[in-house]
Amino acid sequence: MKASGIISLLIVSIISFTVISAQNKSPNELDAYKETAKRIVSSSLEHRNTYSMLRDFCSFGPRLSGSENSIKAIHWAENKMKELGFDNIWLQPVMVPHWERGKVEQAVITNGRFSGREINICALGGSVGTDQEGITAPLFEIKNLAEIDSVKANVKGKIVFINEPMDESLVSTFSAYGKAVEKRLFGADRASRYGAVAVIIRSITTKFDNVPHTGVMIYRDSVPEIPAVAAGYEDSDLLHTALMENPDLKINLKLSCRTLPDAPSYNVMGEIKGSELPDEVIVVGGHLDSWDKGEGANDDGAGCMQSLEVLDLLKHLDLKPKRTIRCVLFINEENGSRGAEAYGAYADTAVEKHIAAIESDAGGFTPRGFSVTADSSVITKIQSWLPVLKSCEIEKIEQGGSGADVNDIKNAKALIGYRPDIQRYFDYHHSDNDVFEAVNPRELELGSAAITVLTYLISQEGL
Amino acid sequence: MKASGIISLLIVSIISFTVISAQNKSPNELDAYKETAKRIVSSSLEHRNTYSMLRDFCSFGPRLSGSENSIKAIHWAENKMKELGFDNIWLQPVMVPHWERGKVEQAVITNGRFSGREINICALGGSVGTDQEGITAPLFEIKNLAEIDSVKANVKGKIVFINEPMDESLVSTFSAYGKAVEKRLFGADRASRYGAVAVIIRSITTKFDNVPHTGVMIYRDSVPEIPAVAAGYEDSDLLHTALMENPDLKINLKLSCRTLPDAPSYNVMGEIKGSELPDEVIVVGGHLDSWDKGEGANDDGAGCMQSLEVLDLLKHLDLKPKRTIRCVLFINEENGSRGAEAYGAYADTAVEKHIAAIESDAGGFTPRGFSVTADSSVITKIQSWLPVLKSCEIEKIEQGGSGADVNDIKNAKALIGYRPDIQRYFDYHHSDNDVFEAVNPRELELGSAAITVLTYLISQEGL
Repeated sequence: MKASGIISLLIVSIISFTVISAQNKSPNELDAYKETAKRIVSSSLEHRNTYSMLRDFCSFGPRLSGSENSIKAIHWAENKMKELGFDNIWLQPVMVPHWERGKVEQAVITNGRFSGREINICALGGSVGTDQEGITAPLFEIKNLAEIDSVKANVKGKIVFINEPMDESLVSTFSAYGKAVEKRLFGADRASRYGAVAVIIRSITTKFDNVPHTGVMIYRDSVPEIPAVAAGYEDSDLLHTALMENPDLKINLKLSCRTLPDAPSYNVMGEIKGSELPDEVIVVGGHLDSWDKGEGANDDGAGCMQSLEVLDLLKHLDLKPKRTIRCVLFINEENGSRGAEAYGAYADTAVEKHIAAIESDAGGFTPRGFSVTADSSVITKIQSWLPVLKSCEIEKIEQGGSGADVNDIKNAKALIGYRPDIQRYFDYHHSDNDVFEAVNPRELELGSAAITVLTYLISQEGL
Repeated sequence: MKASGIISLLIVSIISFTVISAQNKSPNELDAYKETAKRIVSSSLEHRNTYSMLRDFCSFGPRLSGSENSIKAIHWAENKMKELGFDNIWLQPVMVPHWERGKVEQAVITNGRFSGREINICALGGSVGTDQEGITAPLFEIKNLAEIDSVKANVKGKIVFINEPMDESLVSTFSAYGKAVEKRLFGADRASRYGAVAVIIRSITTKFDNVPHTGVMIYRDSVPEIPAVAAGYEDSDLLHTALMENPDLKINLKLSCRTLPDAPSYNVMGEIKGSELPDEVIVVGGHLDSWDKGEGANDDGAGCMQSLEVLDLLKHLDLKPKRTIRCVLFINEENGSRGAEAYGAYADTAVEKHIAAIESDAGGFTPRGFSVTADSSVITKIQSWLPVLKSCEIEKIEQGGSGADVNDIKNAKALIGYRPDIQRYFDYHHSDNDVFEAVNPRELELGSAAITVLTYLISQEGL
């Protein structure tokens, strides 16, 4: 072995020492937690209660902010918390954006060989609609949003088709989503600046079917607001082929979507009071609202039901947390984050102290890890619990982001994002594919168990 | 910190030192492998070639040993290896058991309120059939196989219904399967010893639908051979309910299944010759045969296609392995292991030396780890590659079993089982649920990438 190798070995040994000394738990204490974790995991897998709740929760359809269904979901959650025997159940009022899709949503090719062919599309959330006759204009394809500046002279009066797929080569579908989402958010804004009359994007999805995927889009400054829609993956291929054959391809686009005045809504909260330190609060949460496609089963029915189940499992197993554990079901994560802002503002002034917040908003899939925003000493402490967390398939605790809803809780020692396997998430995300049947009961329940075990450890050990 | 804590810290430091010194790789060398791994992962996710091959492979239906389809599969695999440009493609002849289901498979309640109600069943593999009128007899329920000895006086002339579900509380579905499978293997044998005329078992599954799951059963000694079938999960509940209402419930069971003489079949092999040590062989494999339900997509179409793709990826990326990498597609894993025995016998006498064998037979799901049968120094060496393997979602290398097909390769330094996430495996296993659509392309491809990276590391570094 080379000298440099020996030096690095010594360094590794010192690091090991530091990591271990920070654990600061006797083997017996960790063994007791392992036993508790085993009970939590067994109970969740055996009773499938998260899954039963999700079946109910999905049964009344999607829950877009401001919609009648979102209010149903809020009352359902409030009643479920009562039924499960939570303490201090309350609704925090908040005004939310209110966009609705309406009944008309149609894109049709109007000339050439494909004349009359309907393209499977859906409006992006926040888009303006069209008048009854719709917009008829030539289609102009670009490979990706970055290309638009170089073709700006050609898009005036056109419908811009941004035909950019997700980068399938990345292991992290969330990274691929991050790279792809700008076209959805700002495609209309950017195209409108050059005189385009509408925008069609290839759906952001890992599933090569023909189901269009919606999601929020944003108008900026005083640029004219033009309609923006997503096309199914297969029909995006079709548009590309049709344009190759006929560069003068025209599309008629009709949309009845519109933005209504802000609507009253609510975050929903319930808790288990801490037995020793009731003024120290650990939040577990997900978001109640969803897009108006499918049933919002993975996004984020799963996270909401898991958050309810954390408290239910503790009660069911008669585990008394030292610190208060609060389930917070946020409204309006998808198109405004008003619920997150409202709860964050409450947390700023609350007499109790928020020590940690855990968000589940990456789907109901098998656990892999938690991503933690915290000082490194806090992360080291959580990492020292891995021998316990491994019993529910948690393999890693990493420094990283948490989630859009808990992000506004300032001064907490740790903001934590639950990180399940994410290979299938964007097959379903914001589309008709995201239904109850897309969730596997065992994967979902293991997530509940993992979040419960971490929550319980924080409640007993602090951070 | 207590004294005991300090002592354990010192031990941990020594262990760290040992682990690290065994790695014996300069950071640059590992960095180069990380780059290679990244190329392998990107290519597999981008091209989805394993998935395309699996679509083809599943298109002609299930591939039970001895069936016409199994021969089609063998020729398909041979041709695919030619198309992909493998070296030394050969078929190893082997005689395999030949059981066939036939067309008749029916269980009907013949008395009481449910009279005429058909129960969703399928014969277990290897079961004898009935004559044309079938067997009509009272149903006698037991909770699990262990109970049979205590009720032996009551089962004579009856159809024994072993109504034992899988143990859902376990995180490892394979452990739950291990606990549940005895009733399928030996239920008929045990019941027959007490004079039962047939056996119905609750399907071994994690999915609470009504699809029956088959699998091998075994007759022992000279006990009379009685028919054995599995009932769907929902219909097992129904039988339980119907028996509660009417303890004299009778069933008519008709089966046309039968065992034919052993049939000729083949293992299929192809390889990439090692550039420096061609006589050292690393096997990657799965099993070509499947049960005669669904399409055997996860069991084990996925493992076969991944094994083909390992060699394809190396060729496609122009990676020249130092040692020979051989894809072995085994026949008859499900009901005889004759392919495994034949290849094992070949390996015993071959001039080349088998240094490792990797089997993929746990479904096409997201990678989690590898299970390794080897000396601890070999396992430590493989663990030292985890920083590379993590790029394809491999988080752990553990001492443990490998797989039924590579198990007969003696003297290899390591027998390795690929271990993906297994929460959904038994939703599909041995049933009509195991079709191409049950496989997610990204999960499948990540498995190909993980096996390729490990295979390449072994080929370059040895064990």
